Amino acid sequence: MTPFDTANISDPFIKKNKITPSCHGQLNELSFAIKDNIDVANEITGYGSPGWINTHPKPVVNAICLEQLLNAGGTCHGKTKSDELAYSLIGVNSFYGTPLNPKAPDRVPGGSSSGSASAVAGELVDFAIGTDTGGSIRIPAGNCGVWGYRPSHGAISVSGVLALAPSFDTVGIIAQTGKILKKVMGVLLAENDSESNTDSSVCFVEDIFQMSDRQILDKITPSLNKISRFHKVQTLKLAEMTDPHVNCNWLFEQLGFLLSTEIWNTFGAWIKNETPKLSPGVEYNLHNYAESANRKDIQSSLYSKKSFQNKMNNFLCEGRILCFPTTVDLAPRLDDITPDFLAGDYIPRAMGVNAISSLSCAPQITIPVAKVSGVPVGLSFIAGFGQDMRLIRFCNQLNNQLKN
Amino acid sequence: MTPFDTANISDPFIKKNKITPSCHGQLNELSFAIKDNIDVANEITGYGSPGWINTHPKPVVNAICLEQLLNAGGTCHGKTKSDELAYSLIGVNSFYGTPLNPKAPDRVPGGSSSGSASAVAGELVDFAIGTDTGGSIRIPAGNCGVWGYRPSHGAISVSGVLALAPSFDTVGIIAQTGKILKKVMGVLLAENDSESNTDSSVCFVEDIFQMSDRQILDKITPSLNKISRFHKVQTLKLAEMTDPHVNCNWLFEQLGFLLSTEIWNTFGAWIKNETPKLSPGVEYNLHNYAESANRKDIQSSLYSKKSFQNKMNNFLCEGRILCFPTTVDLAPRLDDITPDFLAGDYIPRAMGVNAISSLSCAPQITIPVAKVSGVPVGLSFIAGFGQDMRLIRFCNQLNNQLKN
Repeated sequence: MTPFDTANISDPFIKKNKITPSCHGQLNELSFAIKDNIDVANEITGYGSPGWINTHPKPVVNAICLEQLLNAGGTCHGKTKSDELAYSLIGVNSFYGTPLNPKAPDRVPGGSSSGSASAVAGELVDFAIGTDTGGSIRIPAGNCGVWGYRPSHGAISVSGVLALAPSFDTVGIIAQTGKILKKVMGVLLAENDSESNTDSSVCFVEDIFQMSDRQILDKITPSLNKISRFHKVQTLKLAEMTDPHVNCNWLFEQLGFLLSTEIWNTFGAWIKNETPKLSPGVEYNLHNYAESANRKDIQSSLYSKKSFQNKMNNFLCEGRILCFPTTVDLAPRLDDITPDFLAGDYIPRAMGVNAISSLSCAPQITIPVAKVSGVPVGLSFIAGFGQDMRLIRFCNQLNNQLKN
Repeated sequence: MTPFDTANISDPFIKKNKITPSCHGQLNELSFAIKDNIDVANEITGYGSPGWINTHPKPVVNAICLEQLLNAGGTCHGKTKSDELAYSLIGVNSFYGTPLNPKAPDRVPGGSSSGSASAVAGELVDFAIGTDTGGSIRIPAGNCGVWGYRPSHGAISVSGVLALAPSFDTVGIIAQTGKILKKVMGVLLAENDSESNTDSSVCFVEDIFQMSDRQILDKITPSLNKISRFHKVQTLKLAEMTDPHVNCNWLFEQLGFLLSTEIWNTFGAWIKNETPKLSPGVEYNLHNYAESANRKDIQSSLYSKKSFQNKMNNFLCEGRILCFPTTVDLAPRLDDITPDFLAGDYIPRAMGVNAISSLSCAPQITIPVAKVSGVPVGLSFIAGFGQDMRLIRFCNQLNNQLKN
């Protein structure tokens, strides 16, 4: 099988196995699946990588997030496929196949929570747990036309979840509806919904609208008009919210570098000691980005990150919510996934947009709002750090407004 | 060697080896040491455990926090001893010996960052990096009469640092002076000090003062009187700040349970697969607490944690700073460390006090303020989540006030 054998469209599950709830609770009757980088007791956590499986033991207990869902009455239906080592945003896995994008079968599902998005979009489960470091929930949820949520960094336990880049790793969910998302996130955040004021002003991120594919803009315009009808809106550039040098390309460079350095902390010793089986694509990225990152630049990049994080959260702290297309390009066609494509500007553009939340630690939700010739398009919303339940309430309310 | 061979007083370093700075910066001329659960490239990260060393490869790169210090001009002088698997607050390691408490040689240094505190108190280095999950920086800093700082959870990268319980794990420092602490934390937090207002009101935590050893109270009273002279103060119980059921014993139970569940996620598969060499004490704790925790209770305990966290941070958000003795008992005598002592109430009392910051994710600093018959006593301060630089400025200012 070649690394880009996208003809191998496959089931979203890497393994189907039912785990019954440990208690009754708010999630009674809800079914879910979990990504293959999250521990299930006595099953190998595969990380989308045969090389990983061959060199790691089975966990003896469930990850904390899985225990939470089982404690609350949810029923797990199995483990979903992940991109290899969760180190991609595309959704193609050369070892296990590419989970179907049920809403756009000739397009990639997006990754790395590819199987989770595929299973939810295909209505095989009510929701699925994924992980998001640089977009790995938001992009597949957007591509597959379902709800996706990346929480504030640190808000949900990552104990029992395989690390990629700990300063950016989060556990979140992909869900069929906003109502399900709200119920599940109440459990994972361990927070009861207080029905407090969701009065928020919306800020359209001008940079991202300017970068976006014209077809995407055309199709989301009716939603934007409705948002303007129901909410106070403004349109600003990232530079106006934070610092003059900030734009999506700068965000991509900061995030890409910092991810690379932490990824080498995570995988370096394993790769040097075990020489595990890797696809050529992942091997290339590990060698050329992670291993090759100039570690003398870590401190200056962390200053940039912290400054952006502080300024963005100051901007968001007074109830502002950012709004922009989840991806500035449509989900790529399966046939288009070639080494040349992957070396092009699709990934920098996608990562630049996703870096707002990854670098600021703030929560983000993507909602399916439109289709371009059948291909789903998501609209994203970011609230300030720690404002997770407020963002969830806002997006549910907004979704009702968009339907009217 | 028996597990409680406290006669084996030893050097704070597990290995001395100089690592020169990678760049010039604010930490030029400053020397430091790092705890043996933090990666140094090409050296085994021992985790205070021969069982760990035998089953893990050498890292190929430095932990991110170490890179930050080297990028900023600091010189590393070696790795300091840790309690076995960082799973203790005492500072006794039956395999490698107990680092000397230089200020009170017949007392334990405290742990698990035992060697870091010992090296700083013995003036072998200007500062040392440690980790703090349930008190592992604060307690040894208090016992050894030096400054100690646990940051807001997530504020400093844990990439390249061995996990214990990820929802509570932090990287922080032990320093000879508040000025050094401020300089180093500016680097680790990647935040420049803005000389903004440090006007804060101080809240004495009544529960902790009531629990404290009479000798400790007598010796810190002059400091408390000075604080009252320079700042607006109030005295409240934890229950008044948060919820009626909250007290130190309740905090200990919540933290103890949640730590146990995550610790089993971290170590379970390793222990079952490798049956590593462990001391009887750590083996007992792993089996009787971590492995035996009732995982059906995770969700309800997480609700309790989140509620406490939200209420405490709401209480602290308007510039309030909590103040209380770092430990309610003096550092135990080396001769007193027996299995019976360890099964007694010293650890629950110490953990209950430390749980305020561990459960609320808020930053805490301990300052040496007094001695009881030569044994150091620390006073602790907690600010709201994310207010790290503000807390550091406040403590430096306060330290000057205490000297007048």
